[in-house]
Amino acid sequence: MEKILCKAKNMLRTDTINPVIENKSLSPKKQTISFNNPVYIVSSMSVVGQKEGKGPLKDYFDIVYLDDKLKEKTFEKAETIMLKKSIDGAIKKSGLEFTELDCMIGGDLLNQITSSQYVAREYSVPFLGVYSACSTMTESLILGSILIDGGYFNNVVCSTCSHFATAERQFRYPLEYGCQRPPYAQWTVTGAGSMVLSSKDNGDNIKIKQATLGKVIDFGTSDLNNMGAAMAPAACDTLVALFTETNTRPEDYDFIITGDLGKLGSDILRELIREKGFNLGKNYHDCGCLIFDITQKCYQGGSGAGCSATVVGSFILDKLKKGEIKNVAYLATGALMSSQSCYQGETIPCISHAVIIERC
Amino acid sequence: MEKILCKAKNMLRTDTINPVIENKSLSPKKQTISFNNPVYIVSSMSVVGQKEGKGPLKDYFDIVYLDDKLKEKTFEKAETIMLKKSIDGAIKKSGLEFTELDCMIGGDLLNQITSSQYVAREYSVPFLGVYSACSTMTESLILGSILIDGGYFNNVVCSTCSHFATAERQFRYPLEYGCQRPPYAQWTVTGAGSMVLSSKDNGDNIKIKQATLGKVIDFGTSDLNNMGAAMAPAACDTLVALFTETNTRPEDYDFIITGDLGKLGSDILRELIREKGFNLGKNYHDCGCLIFDITQKCYQGGSGAGCSATVVGSFILDKLKKGEIKNVAYLATGALMSSQSCYQGETIPCISHAVIIERC
Repeated sequence: MEKILCKAKNMLRTDTINPVIENKSLSPKKQTISFNNPVYIVSSMSVVGQKEGKGPLKDYFDIVYLDDKLKEKTFEKAETIMLKKSIDGAIKKSGLEFTELDCMIGGDLLNQITSSQYVAREYSVPFLGVYSACSTMTESLILGSILIDGGYFNNVVCSTCSHFATAERQFRYPLEYGCQRPPYAQWTVTGAGSMVLSSKDNGDNIKIKQATLGKVIDFGTSDLNNMGAAMAPAACDTLVALFTETNTRPEDYDFIITGDLGKLGSDILRELIREKGFNLGKNYHDCGCLIFDITQKCYQGGSGAGCSATVVGSFILDKLKKGEIKNVAYLATGALMSSQSCYQGETIPCISHAVIIERC
Repeated sequence: MEKILCKAKNMLRTDTINPVIENKSLSPKKQTISFNNPVYIVSSMSVVGQKEGKGPLKDYFDIVYLDDKLKEKTFEKAETIMLKKSIDGAIKKSGLEFTELDCMIGGDLLNQITSSQYVAREYSVPFLGVYSACSTMTESLILGSILIDGGYFNNVVCSTCSHFATAERQFRYPLEYGCQRPPYAQWTVTGAGSMVLSSKDNGDNIKIKQATLGKVIDFGTSDLNNMGAAMAPAACDTLVALFTETNTRPEDYDFIITGDLGKLGSDILRELIREKGFNLGKNYHDCGCLIFDITQKCYQGGSGAGCSATVVGSFILDKLKKGEIKNVAYLATGALMSSQSCYQGETIPCISHAVIIERC
């Protein structure tokens, strides 16, 4: 196993020197925006499946389903029900009436982000569909924050989800094929996470202060199983932009959390960012590494849009509420290929959008 | 043929009375936002394929490709090249340097919006991926306008594309199967459209004044070929919200343009909105009906995210620039299903986002 990990790392190290695409506009654009008006996270709801409910964070999740199919005919249907549960739960916990909701923003991993679309039809509320793979939650939070900070709306719900069985069917092979997984693979989380953003606080005083928009980065990885290695350069790019533009260092954040590079991807990120002059210390974590433990045979850890959404929405917000930590840089990372583009010989472009969450 | 059209209309009329999903929150939410700071459309670029280049609007398009495959190995690759051409062209026409671009927003019909992602990796600029099927262009324009109006960025490029061959392969059947098309089908446009939004005018004085965010509406249509009937209720919902919230009537707009209901869908929209007390007169048009003429055997007309983007970006903006019209309500309409969701017995949820474009 150690050999394969080394090979994957080396593969990426070579690519790093020769990115497949030469960027046309090389001058750095400002990627970070600050929110001058308060954008509060007033509630969140994390709904997960059985495996996630047996992991280290089991006590933090709001609902754990013992049957990943929720007694439905298809896994896709089960995914939409989990997403709806998380949205309804977040709205309920926020104390807002359904009628006070101004806008919904969301997306998911399924083709045409159908889980989100099918759930959105059940609410008589404007809907904005977004997609940046596993970075969808931070993209939603950024747009939600802009809508509130800019004074367009007061209450916005941001949500995303993923499901191990629907993602495997779509991106790799249906579970029934019984395909073997390489040791550098990650395990798609079955889960849905939602957060309600509001211009008015509910007493928790947890705010989204800043956001760093990601750029699409492609360093030539093409292995559909090796998402961590593909996404690490995108996370590095966004983190460096954040540090540089806000004049901060890694130690200025109580928690820097990526979602979801897995173990290998996190190691690569540490290395990549060291070259840029930053050292990620003990305050750096990855949602994919937190959600499963080593006995659960999830290889490099969790992945999927639902992973960081459920981990940040439960474990991290809980730490903020209790005052154990004061600020968090949350970087979700997304691999933007489709299975078709990879069959056609394409590499994997990636992105990472970040939000800075603070307790004031 | 007349019989089939009648059947399709009747099917919808019954569904109208019994929408499949009972909306939980029935109180109307405000969907329209106004932009107080100027958001100028400073340039646009419309790139289309051969069939579109033989239609009634041929003289308005910037580039017409005679080979829809652009001599590439795959239609997907050709689609990305068309999209890149339209983005580069729009930036060039705007007079801005690549380095002045702050953000890119885009999406397309392919799974995981890959055309947009693969093009975005070629620019060192923050990227926001969005998806609302054929309503993607107006969703992009809305978010771009918000980013500029809110003072977050100065120059944003919004883009989308579609390709007949890639869309047919993904949503219906690969062209090689030679499947017969029903008379109420629409023809996916091969084309890419981009617009550059800016806080500074270039002399054209064309502004995005307002936007109406759409809700996801599902009235029970399940025929993957009958997109017009599925989307008409969503367009109706957004138009009624626009008229009501801005206290306007259809005659207050020089042009009301949907994209793309096709002939049948447009007829259904006229009927649906008449029931709500509004009469769409001669100033109502549909991009799908404008882009092809009856001799081109495109059945109900054009569709696809690239249709309204290329038509509005060329023909409509041209009319505004020349002063022939002063304001336009542009409602792109999207059908949000995936082929998998329909195989699993689901109906087609739809959405329509609108922007109001004015020449001051």
